[in-house]
Amino acid sequence: MDEEKESTATKVASIDPEKILGYIRKKDRKALLTVFEIVPNIDIAEAVEGFEPADLLYIFRAVPSEITADFFDELSSDAKESLIKAMTDKELVDIINEQYADDVADTLTELPANLASKVLRAASKDMRKDINTLLQYAEGTAGALMTTEYLEFIDTTPVFKVIDEIRAKGKDAETIYTLFVRNKQREFVGTAGLDDLIFAKADETLGDIMNRDVVSCHTATDQEEVAKMFRRYDLNAMAVLNADNRLVGVITVDDVMDVMVEEQQEDLARLTNMEPTDKPYMELSAWDNAKKCIPWLIALLILGTFVTMVLDRIEKSKIFTALPMLIAFVPTLMDTGGNAGAQTTGLMIRGLAVDDFGPKDVLKVLWKEFRSALIIAGIVSCFAFFWITIEQYTGIVSDAENFPGVNIWSGNCWSMEFFTHVLKNSALISITMGVAVLFSKTIGTLLPLGAAAIKKDPALLSQPMLTTIMDVATLCIFLLMAMTFFPNFA
Amino acid sequence: MDEEKESTATKVASIDPEKILGYIRKKDRKALLTVFEIVPNIDIAEAVEGFEPADLLYIFRAVPSEITADFFDELSSDAKESLIKAMTDKELVDIINEQYADDVADTLTELPANLASKVLRAASKDMRKDINTLLQYAEGTAGALMTTEYLEFIDTTPVFKVIDEIRAKGKDAETIYTLFVRNKQREFVGTAGLDDLIFAKADETLGDIMNRDVVSCHTATDQEEVAKMFRRYDLNAMAVLNADNRLVGVITVDDVMDVMVEEQQEDLARLTNMEPTDKPYMELSAWDNAKKCIPWLIALLILGTFVTMVLDRIEKSKIFTALPMLIAFVPTLMDTGGNAGAQTTGLMIRGLAVDDFGPKDVLKVLWKEFRSALIIAGIVSCFAFFWITIEQYTGIVSDAENFPGVNIWSGNCWSMEFFTHVLKNSALISITMGVAVLFSKTIGTLLPLGAAAIKKDPALLSQPMLTTIMDVATLCIFLLMAMTFFPNFA
Repeated sequence: MDEEKESTATKVASIDPEKILGYIRKKDRKALLTVFEIVPNIDIAEAVEGFEPADLLYIFRAVPSEITADFFDELSSDAKESLIKAMTDKELVDIINEQYADDVADTLTELPANLASKVLRAASKDMRKDINTLLQYAEGTAGALMTTEYLEFIDTTPVFKVIDEIRAKGKDAETIYTLFVRNKQREFVGTAGLDDLIFAKADETLGDIMNRDVVSCHTATDQEEVAKMFRRYDLNAMAVLNADNRLVGVITVDDVMDVMVEEQQEDLARLTNMEPTDKPYMELSAWDNAKKCIPWLIALLILGTFVTMVLDRIEKSKIFTALPMLIAFVPTLMDTGGNAGAQTTGLMIRGLAVDDFGPKDVLKVLWKEFRSALIIAGIVSCFAFFWITIEQYTGIVSDAENFPGVNIWSGNCWSMEFFTHVLKNSALISITMGVAVLFSKTIGTLLPLGAAAIKKDPALLSQPMLTTIMDVATLCIFLLMAMTFFPNFA
Repeated sequence: MDEEKESTATKVASIDPEKILGYIRKKDRKALLTVFEIVPNIDIAEAVEGFEPADLLYIFRAVPSEITADFFDELSSDAKESLIKAMTDKELVDIINEQYADDVADTLTELPANLASKVLRAASKDMRKDINTLLQYAEGTAGALMTTEYLEFIDTTPVFKVIDEIRAKGKDAETIYTLFVRNKQREFVGTAGLDDLIFAKADETLGDIMNRDVVSCHTATDQEEVAKMFRRYDLNAMAVLNADNRLVGVITVDDVMDVMVEEQQEDLARLTNMEPTDKPYMELSAWDNAKKCIPWLIALLILGTFVTMVLDRIEKSKIFTALPMLIAFVPTLMDTGGNAGAQTTGLMIRGLAVDDFGPKDVLKVLWKEFRSALIIAGIVSCFAFFWITIEQYTGIVSDAENFPGVNIWSGNCWSMEFFTHVLKNSALISITMGVAVLFSKTIGTLLPLGAAAIKKDPALLSQPMLTTIMDVATLCIFLLMAMTFFPNFA
């Protein structure tokens, strides 16, 4: 079914690994060139995944390096490694220097030391300088995300000259759709789109046609912040400045799309109590996977000690010994409280992620959540009251000590005494639930906003802390309510 | 703190609503023009949020419509409404026809009927046709996302002519960085970047320089699929074809970034058991918010009936009546099982979202998760055994019936009998936990993959169903294990 969907969705020429292998074995250079002409690099890279290194190497020997350089970048780290091992120094020089410095820098961080230095030796002096610049920035910052290959012009350059210069040196830049403009003092002053150039009159200068209302970031800006700015301002490329406001790099929209998915995957992982990873699932070993899960499960287990302790005490309290049936509602109460809180935590994490609000809006947000929690608690409590009454009349739960075997099936349930007892239980549980929902939505608002206020990832601790706090709180509320409702047992 | 961060992160000219209001009141047309020159539209739109309609209207009267058209599009729906009400027909004609048809179509869906028809009357005949085309596609499809304003050329057109044509009509297109190429039979055959044009020789035709390895989609393609393709192929724009493979529209990367965030927000909402919404949090009323939460809480409450029923039975079983202390571990067992399953469900939802694997890989994925579940169950169980032993010795929980007041603080805990009893309890609980983790990770793999196999949103039902199934399963496993461990009580 999936393949069917693919075929109506995309118009990519279909590609058969066997066919490519056939071309390689027959040394059919022309057929290989055609493949590269009609099939996107990433699709070829996926098709050749699992080929022998020798077969893979033939592709690079048969097809010119200006075509295979981008293809090389799409290969898996394993394939890259075996190729770098197998290539001669000359071949590596061709492939590496056709690539963008930021892609080579990314590859380097995944390679073992001996291969990394083989790659660095192959890189030209200019590229080596660019790579070293890029590698000095911390992961997750604009500096690490940017490319050093872009087009920069002085604002006094006439438009016709700019076009000539683009023709001369544009092919090395990662984007030529956005031109970056500086003044004589080397300060970044604006950008011009390639379209502005097309529509400009020949005697205008870049300074005349450039946009001055441009957004830029610094090398240390967080990549999540960068992604937000791209989306807010509909950018194709953004300038990255150093502390002196000089242009040192450029971020392009394709890299930002990857950041957006990365950040989203991180939030999802955190919400399900896992350590995030940027490796694709299929490349994770069972042990890698386990390592991301175990610390959280053990931490939650330890936090759960409080719940065990409180429940052990409550169970043995006079009131719950007399009415053990009530204990059967503990998971439902905990789950409802937990779910209600998780909804709010989720809303907060999402709102913070897209800048709908910030920590400074805490009062406004709290007030809004509180009002909606009142509505929710009211409606859910009313429903619970009704539902729990049914549960007792139908014998889904039963008070074996006080009303053994009393339910509608035995027909002995129509006494006023049973009716009052049932309603009292329903009221106790539904009111406890309402209070738990209110409390949980309040905590669920405060935890993520608090985390954001102290610049921590709001998804990191909110969910597990909420669960533990709510489990304990629900039990305490339940005990207090029960003591109020059944004072003769307390 | 947030403002400080902003100021180092962005180089946007800062904007003060009071200042703009001052310019309006002083009717300082020139100052307003300067604002539009140096500040991005979305920042101005946020600054004027809350201005009186009359003040807002002055902006549109003072600044030419080719400048304010994009600004209009960034305003909130309320501001748009009051402006449309206040504008003369002539003013509306100017503003509407300077906009892109897809933006006007989006605005229309948010307006009350009388204002929507005022806008449609203002639109030119061409734009009205475009809007009607766009409105016929279902929300969430490529058809609804695309723009109808793009540049299309025949493949035999010489490059120099293309540049002239762009100069003549390019300003109306949403992107001129990607040119779309068709053949004489009106079939879409490829794309050419504006950069390809710049580097082309003058006697080449579009057919000579265009890329043939292009990806495209159909009007009915799901927008999530479109976003994946943009990311996979690093696109700036993508062709949308009809059933006859003719180009009917174009999707640009800025719209795709919004889709990516929308889809991410949807997944996060679903994971926290809420109905997704595409309205910003601050625009939701408390009641809107409650409506998204209540159905899920009630559904989960009803599902929880099974848990209540089983727990009520188990509590009253001979074995748990004899060892009530064990009940205190029920929440911990349920939470650990639920958390372990949620981790796996999360991994599945993320993997499916980025196409790391699909439903067809179910066996491979299941095997991988099962191996990692074995490791996790082993390590977590061992830790739990150790931890629960400590809990019993320190009196965090106590077996009041059989060993009242026995713990290290009373010093009376060094009998062999207590030691055996404690270890037996620890073994019972930790083995139950291990089995629950294994079971939960298996179910957590199958639910989302099953949902994806029948083309349902894997995040929709996986999490609540997992919780319910696991709560009931954990209780049953616990009962069976207890009967095995304490046969004399069973």
